[in-house]
Amino acid sequence: MRNAKIRAVQYGCGKMSKVILNYLVDHGVEIVGAIDKNPAVVGQDIGDFADFGYKTGIIISDKADQVFDNCDADIAIVTIFSYMPEMYEFYETAIKHGVNVISTCEEAIYPWTTSPSETNRLDKLAKENHVTIMGSGMQDIYWINMPCLAMAGMNKIKKVRGVVSYNVEDYGLALAEAHGVGYDSERFERDIASAESLPSYMWNAAEAICSKMNWTIQSISQKSVPYTLDEDVYSETLGRTIPAGQVTGMSAVTKVQTHQGIDLEVECIGKVYRQDDGDMCDWEITGEPALIFSVNKPDTVALTCGTIVNRIPTVLDAPAGYITSEKARLITYPSYPLHTYIEK
Amino acid sequence: MRNAKIRAVQYGCGKMSKVILNYLVDHGVEIVGAIDKNPAVVGQDIGDFADFGYKTGIIISDKADQVFDNCDADIAIVTIFSYMPEMYEFYETAIKHGVNVISTCEEAIYPWTTSPSETNRLDKLAKENHVTIMGSGMQDIYWINMPCLAMAGMNKIKKVRGVVSYNVEDYGLALAEAHGVGYDSERFERDIASAESLPSYMWNAAEAICSKMNWTIQSISQKSVPYTLDEDVYSETLGRTIPAGQVTGMSAVTKVQTHQGIDLEVECIGKVYRQDDGDMCDWEITGEPALIFSVNKPDTVALTCGTIVNRIPTVLDAPAGYITSEKARLITYPSYPLHTYIEK
Repeated sequence: MRNAKIRAVQYGCGKMSKVILNYLVDHGVEIVGAIDKNPAVVGQDIGDFADFGYKTGIIISDKADQVFDNCDADIAIVTIFSYMPEMYEFYETAIKHGVNVISTCEEAIYPWTTSPSETNRLDKLAKENHVTIMGSGMQDIYWINMPCLAMAGMNKIKKVRGVVSYNVEDYGLALAEAHGVGYDSERFERDIASAESLPSYMWNAAEAICSKMNWTIQSISQKSVPYTLDEDVYSETLGRTIPAGQVTGMSAVTKVQTHQGIDLEVECIGKVYRQDDGDMCDWEITGEPALIFSVNKPDTVALTCGTIVNRIPTVLDAPAGYITSEKARLITYPSYPLHTYIEK
Repeated sequence: MRNAKIRAVQYGCGKMSKVILNYLVDHGVEIVGAIDKNPAVVGQDIGDFADFGYKTGIIISDKADQVFDNCDADIAIVTIFSYMPEMYEFYETAIKHGVNVISTCEEAIYPWTTSPSETNRLDKLAKENHVTIMGSGMQDIYWINMPCLAMAGMNKIKKVRGVVSYNVEDYGLALAEAHGVGYDSERFERDIASAESLPSYMWNAAEAICSKMNWTIQSISQKSVPYTLDEDVYSETLGRTIPAGQVTGMSAVTKVQTHQGIDLEVECIGKVYRQDDGDMCDWEITGEPALIFSVNKPDTVALTCGTIVNRIPTVLDAPAGYITSEKARLITYPSYPLHTYIEK
């Protein structure tokens, strides 16, 4: 058990970071720096930014190197973007300053094959600097480690099927358009289904499941399928009603065949929610016996931020390099100050 | 990784053991002995007993010491009864022969406080004989380790509520009567609710959750509540219809208050199922955020047997003594022969 508080730099001060900063304070982490480029937040005290109700003296800065130079941080919590190539420079900055990294970047959960160049360079750099970099968030527990634990009571696994969803209304116009919201089916087919697409967030989670289970992948592919409704639905993001039959979102279905004969089919649904819709996290494992479990309307933002914070002690204890969460020590809920969970 | 097969003795040849024996063979375990007192099975080849479709040469014997003397077993899989005092002698026999123990005994999942004398004597004896004893089954993953993992993404836990159920029709007349099936409410109150009762299976699971979370128990208590229906239901076990309003089973509710201010309320329901009823495994965690998850109609017998078999490598790798499953290495599904998961 360590007796000194964990020191963290928040790298990226957007929507998620407000929740993360509050959770860090709840668990006794010292926030020693905050970085963002957005002129609307640069210069703000993080106490004001994240509604602590008091000033902290830690001011959001757009000078990353300067922030890292002026503190001896244990870890940087890097939010910002969803894919590795656009995240590389931020990770590199933290690692070069000898600071461990945990990140909400969705691809970072298991980027070994979707961004092999970036990931291997970061792995090498992290080892040279004696620090660890890890991706985490909702996927860590609920899309990867929990399904694997649930499967551990089965005698024979034949197929793994997982479905997760999110509300595109929560993420702005660009994401809504990338999901074909408001398109007719011809336009969806032309602009989205036929276009080359980035791996869905479940693609990387499926690869992490295979890694944890020591299954080797024979083939992996993804298909985008439009969602439509029999009734009109209003989209705040588009500022108009989407008529019945037009696209309200899409599902990316990733299929994996393994050399072990076990298939995975994971589906990532992003659509305009109706009144009673909620996020999904449903798993169906075919085999002996069959096993079906689900998290009921999970609060994806809160669970992502909770997982990121609670994951920190295992990042600090992990060996140097790029360590993905399916290989890390089991994450635990911190009933006591977070630093007391550091074993080394 | 170990390259030699695991050798197992099946200690107790009843209903569950038939499933366990098949799962052991599926995962490349050598069955080197089988013990039971029941004259109906003594003398049977386990290949006939468990419907392998071939003879194995391993004959069910009622002479436990002789079985252990005539093989060098790694582990004994001890089924038989549900509570520690009646199991003590069987565990003692295996341990004195230097054989590790895994057991389906429900209390064995966390018996430190409900049977402290037996458990501490077994812990000492196991250490003297350099072997490990562990309880496992459905509770290991689905009632203990999986709820704890699910909670690891939360920022703040206030209350843990779990409900599990089983069909009393599966377990014979004695268990049905112990659940008050067919009683009227006065008789239930007099003979069951007011009588001193054994800890429910969820009592021990709740204590294991507290152990894993490092929560310390301030108070723990249990109450038996009758189940009734508004309609008649036929009980095969009783051989008669239970009229509406009469007891069809009971629920044992165990309440735990911890010194950390977190409450647990776990409910273990045993009742006569109707057509569409299935086993339950529902968890509701109050806090930030709220978290609800469930396993849908789990096949409790198959998952118990699967967990018992898949748990074996971590028993063999664990330190000597009585090691409860919440403190053991994480259980994993064995995609490859079971002995390849032994690390030591």
